Amino acid sequence: MLGPWKCLHREVLADYKVFRIWREQVQPPRATKPYDFYLLEAIDWVNVIPVTPEGQIVFVRQYRYGTKEVSLEIPGGAVDPEDPSPLEAARRELREETGYAPEHLRYLGAVAPNPAILTNRCHVFLAENVRLVGAQQLDGAEEIEVVLLEVGEIPERIMRGEITHALVLAALYLYMLGQQGLAQPSR
Amino acid sequence: MLGPWKCLHREVLADYKVFRIWREQVQPPRATKPYDFYLLEAIDWVNVIPVTPEGQIVFVRQYRYGTKEVSLEIPGGAVDPEDPSPLEAARRELREETGYAPEHLRYLGAVAPNPAILTNRCHVFLAENVRLVGAQQLDGAEEIEVVLLEVGEIPERIMRGEITHALVLAALYLYMLGQQGLAQPSR
Repeated sequence: MLGPWKCLHREVLADYKVFRIWREQVQPPRATKPYDFYLLEAIDWVNVIPVTPEGQIVFVRQYRYGTKEVSLEIPGGAVDPEDPSPLEAARRELREETGYAPEHLRYLGAVAPNPAILTNRCHVFLAENVRLVGAQQLDGAEEIEVVLLEVGEIPERIMRGEITHALVLAALYLYMLGQQGLAQPSR
Repeated sequence: MLGPWKCLHREVLADYKVFRIWREQVQPPRATKPYDFYLLEAIDWVNVIPVTPEGQIVFVRQYRYGTKEVSLEIPGGAVDPEDPSPLEAARRELREETGYAPEHLRYLGAVAPNPAILTNRCHVFLAENVRLVGAQQLDGAEEIEVVLLEVGEIPERIMRGEITHALVLAALYLYMLGQQGLAQPSR
């Protein structure tokens, strides 16, 4: 029996807008003493794989302030409190970051960004038959370049180290496995 | 020109052992005012894909306190200050969590766990011809079950939602692409 572990005490240590820090004192069943776990509580995130009718994928390039590097990614972001659902958050992020809108959005599944310290999920959507419908709608801190890539060049770009965002790689892997005709997930 | 962005001021807000919180006041080039970014500074992490001579992959199952669920993963963890290198950290984590040791460790590349808020990398290693050499060496809070999976069943388990850790999915994707005969990354 691997879990659940009993929480003895929990408290918010800090609230930094994009995440809150919790400390939980936990008693793992076979441990001889309680342990402190530090957790990041964040709202759920979404990632979108936008595919054009010509079979290209709409990527974005942006400067990422955590790694202080320009990162090649698929569109995505946080599910805002005003978003009715993760699906609508995916549609909004796609529209804002790229100016593209999909004919149809399909759920590919959810991944855990880091189940040891993060409490949230990242939902992955396939945006089918996306078309450019307008200009980007960026907030003041965002600078995003739109880049169309052929599906077939993505594996080589990954192996060359041009796509390194773990959540993006996880999303692309789900997509590639789905394309290989495996059963769709029921989650 | 997408970056770099100029940091006007930075300060440590908190130190929680497994990560430190930074606030950085930043001036994105085209923004009209500075923005506060909250960053998590963590030491680098490693993930290991251990393959037996029979072609099985050594997975671990453990209760993860962030998501409060049992998670099916490959071995991994943080590069400790005492580890001479990420490669040696990978060897140590594999030995501690599973009791297995490799004939050879090969670097598959690094991924960014979340380039927007995390500063660190997760290094991915392929552990070839691993063999059971002893018992697990777990710390007091760890409870880990070792599970051998056939390489061929991994895609279906992912699509069924049985493997959801984003860093594990990213590592497995790098491995699968490498197995498909793509050039190895130079990073």
